[in-house]
Amino acid sequence: MSKSKSGKQKQQKLKARLPRGFADRLPADLNAVNRMMATISAVYERYGFEPVETPFIEYTDALGKFLPDQDRPNEGVFSFQDDDEQWLSLRYDLTAPLARFVAEHNQDVPRPYRSYRSGWVFRNEKPGPGRFRQFMQFDADTVGAGTAAADAEICMMASDTLEALGIPRGDYVIRINNRKVLDGVMECIGLAGDEYAISRLTVLRAIDKLDRLGVDGVRALLGEGREDESGAVTPGAGLDNSAIDAVLAYVGSKQNSDAETIAGIRTTVEGSETGMAGCDELAEIAKLVDAAGFGDGRVIIDPSVVRGLEYYTGPVFEAELTFEVPNEKGQPVVFGSVGGGGRYDGLVGRFRGEDVPATGFSIGVSRLASALKLTGRLSGGSDQGPVVVSVMDRDRTADYMALAAQLRDAGIRAEIYVGDAGMKAQFKYADRRNAPCVVIQGEDELQAGKLQIKDLVEGRRQAAAIADHAEWQESRPGQFEIDEGDLVSAVADLLKRQAEDAT
Amino acid sequence: MSKSKSGKQKQQKLKARLPRGFADRLPADLNAVNRMMATISAVYERYGFEPVETPFIEYTDALGKFLPDQDRPNEGVFSFQDDDEQWLSLRYDLTAPLARFVAEHNQDVPRPYRSYRSGWVFRNEKPGPGRFRQFMQFDADTVGAGTAAADAEICMMASDTLEALGIPRGDYVIRINNRKVLDGVMECIGLAGDEYAISRLTVLRAIDKLDRLGVDGVRALLGEGREDESGAVTPGAGLDNSAIDAVLAYVGSKQNSDAETIAGIRTTVEGSETGMAGCDELAEIAKLVDAAGFGDGRVIIDPSVVRGLEYYTGPVFEAELTFEVPNEKGQPVVFGSVGGGGRYDGLVGRFRGEDVPATGFSIGVSRLASALKLTGRLSGGSDQGPVVVSVMDRDRTADYMALAAQLRDAGIRAEIYVGDAGMKAQFKYADRRNAPCVVIQGEDELQAGKLQIKDLVEGRRQAAAIADHAEWQESRPGQFEIDEGDLVSAVADLLKRQAEDAT
Repeated sequence: MSKSKSGKQKQQKLKARLPRGFADRLPADLNAVNRMMATISAVYERYGFEPVETPFIEYTDALGKFLPDQDRPNEGVFSFQDDDEQWLSLRYDLTAPLARFVAEHNQDVPRPYRSYRSGWVFRNEKPGPGRFRQFMQFDADTVGAGTAAADAEICMMASDTLEALGIPRGDYVIRINNRKVLDGVMECIGLAGDEYAISRLTVLRAIDKLDRLGVDGVRALLGEGREDESGAVTPGAGLDNSAIDAVLAYVGSKQNSDAETIAGIRTTVEGSETGMAGCDELAEIAKLVDAAGFGDGRVIIDPSVVRGLEYYTGPVFEAELTFEVPNEKGQPVVFGSVGGGGRYDGLVGRFRGEDVPATGFSIGVSRLASALKLTGRLSGGSDQGPVVVSVMDRDRTADYMALAAQLRDAGIRAEIYVGDAGMKAQFKYADRRNAPCVVIQGEDELQAGKLQIKDLVEGRRQAAAIADHAEWQESRPGQFEIDEGDLVSAVADLLKRQAEDAT
Repeated sequence: MSKSKSGKQKQQKLKARLPRGFADRLPADLNAVNRMMATISAVYERYGFEPVETPFIEYTDALGKFLPDQDRPNEGVFSFQDDDEQWLSLRYDLTAPLARFVAEHNQDVPRPYRSYRSGWVFRNEKPGPGRFRQFMQFDADTVGAGTAAADAEICMMASDTLEALGIPRGDYVIRINNRKVLDGVMECIGLAGDEYAISRLTVLRAIDKLDRLGVDGVRALLGEGREDESGAVTPGAGLDNSAIDAVLAYVGSKQNSDAETIAGIRTTVEGSETGMAGCDELAEIAKLVDAAGFGDGRVIIDPSVVRGLEYYTGPVFEAELTFEVPNEKGQPVVFGSVGGGGRYDGLVGRFRGEDVPATGFSIGVSRLASALKLTGRLSGGSDQGPVVVSVMDRDRTADYMALAAQLRDAGIRAEIYVGDAGMKAQFKYADRRNAPCVVIQGEDELQAGKLQIKDLVEGRRQAAAIADHAEWQESRPGQFEIDEGDLVSAVADLLKRQAEDAT
């Protein structure tokens, strides 16, 4: 590394750091997630979905979100003004852009339109542990189909996807509920109508926290409000006791079978037309799920599912991993949600002046990757580096390049050392790269038409058994000489040997 | 599609459109570009480079670019302020983020650090035909190596990459120049020193336009300025005639061999230490390139190469496609640049207080994809859709789902029709999806334990030969009956037959 320090440079020295909530990705992680995404694509393709990709930037109004000059919303977007003063935003999910895409290309896509998309989305929110401002989603959606078959199929596909990724049956569940049922519950406790929109949202958010806060916590949030351990107070929905009891009875109405669960829900939403319509939809989905064999606990009806996004109009889905992992305090907790979705019949309609039925499912790729990593099911594959051809004599760089090219032409990863340090540093570099071997040709070998091959794997093993430094230098563990012409075959043999030893 | 038009909805109806300079990507394009990127990765991996990925958002100062409250620069960035008032920007290339990454993870990466990265970058500039504000780059870089071997290798790898993508030898060239040589030329015409920084930039930009404007255009830009066809005037560098002659002599000094070219350049920069150092570097690179056999016209020294970005400090590279394509006016023009790069020893140094040698090459993926498409070398693969199981009787949806699942379990892409339209629309949908066949089971078939398979490919062929509608209905072209239990084997046979017929 050449050094040219100057006062000016020092003064201007910047701090190399990323904004909070953003992260770099290294090879093991990258390769593992890429493989994971290939598996998801394969399942979606088999179900007849086709890929599509929208850009990262959309008109803010097309996404239907807030502008930065307003109070920052809980789940805000990154926005900026274009030259013509119009507001642009980074996409915050892959559903809103799909709605824009379908509305824009209305004549060009088949109906129903079945597509999948993966990519980074951005949330301008407070980052925290495991909570990033840029994260990866993988979505599948069916637009233009209002049938229960479309909803049921998406849920069964989500189940197949989790199993294709190696999550065993029993370690996950796809839960289904219906926003119409939730609306029915609200209606029954007197929260129908526009004037109660905010109260309804507060109730939904309270139910959504059941996993984390338990029944008592939700009860507090439905009533007067709740003070957490830090003393922070969350205001409640202000329901009276009988309303709270009704909501909690509904939330806890899951039974051992979907049929019983739906029957139970029906009693809690009796009198609400919307609620009963929601129950009918759930019953139709449950029938299809059962007939396809997914009613064995893989896909179930669960009245406690809410989903945070506001655009859902019917069935909502949640994919949960049910095995336990230790939390920050070392206590075992259920891993929880790795994806979800639902029906959003109004989202495309914002552009078309008429509702367009649509349903979809989104996988939180980064979160699912963490789950797979935690359970040893995510592998980045081999981290073996390239063969390193060392540069003993700088004037012979071209010859060393030719040796590396020979290996590459035979399909073997190979590079020459392109730095300017000596042999010791070159071996250290090869070690650091996890190279299988180093190829060496000094003056003696050149004259004799020979090459030295230093097997780094074997070398490390033998070196571990040699205590004495002099003995080590003498024995040159793992190093052997070959004829120059045998380079490719000798290295291929060595790679084969190493692969066999590793298994 | 359900309709629920209301006055309110109509009033709020949004226009579905993308901001200028952004585009959606459809399956054929997506699949083709993904395959192209896999080919590039494979070459880079074989050369020993490893993947890395940085986030889309960085601190603006880390990227070293302009803020939006200043005049919009020619190649501007999308920027916004974070909660803590700090400026954030979308990355405008993959080099500046790499510099930040290496500086931040200095202790964790091997030296030299050889990495490749691909991804979208963003430019907040005026979009135009073929000029997008979001585009894909694919970079490879070696950081921590100041050797000519590192530069030469990157250029040879670029050459191997273009050939791996199917561009024949002779249809492309990798041109190499050196910023130090260009600085030497400036020195020789009296433009050394900080006070001439802007003049030097004007001269570089003039040279960079040689391809587009020819020698006379560049001469005008080096002197008084130039008026284009629209009457717009670009101010010139204001050089006197002898200086202009010197620059043009330099620019035109490419000879038939690298050795002659470098000898020619030496005469034009004689007296400039910097210029001569640049020539020495070029000579060393040329030696390695020749020894590796790439001196056959694949990789050449060319004094007219400049490169637009300001951070280059030594060798600069340009990959050009040399075949002709018609321009907007139908005139044949050389396709031109599809990538480039160079040495940027100061970029990591901005964070470290000392120069860190680095060299890299960036492929403009979208531009290269256009080139491959134009020459018929970019294929999206098969656009065959899934088998469609039609829904003749809605009450039997679960049974149809089971048929589709049978096919999927055998690895065959299959879906049921999830819309709510009748059989005619379902056949139209299957046609639209380019389905190989439709599976049908009505009441008659159900009773008899049979299925109808409608071969859409064969059907279209036979239908083309049948003029009469009644005859068509009678003969049901391409349709045949099978036993329910033979679904998978019958469809597999049909797919095989179609594949054979297609070749």
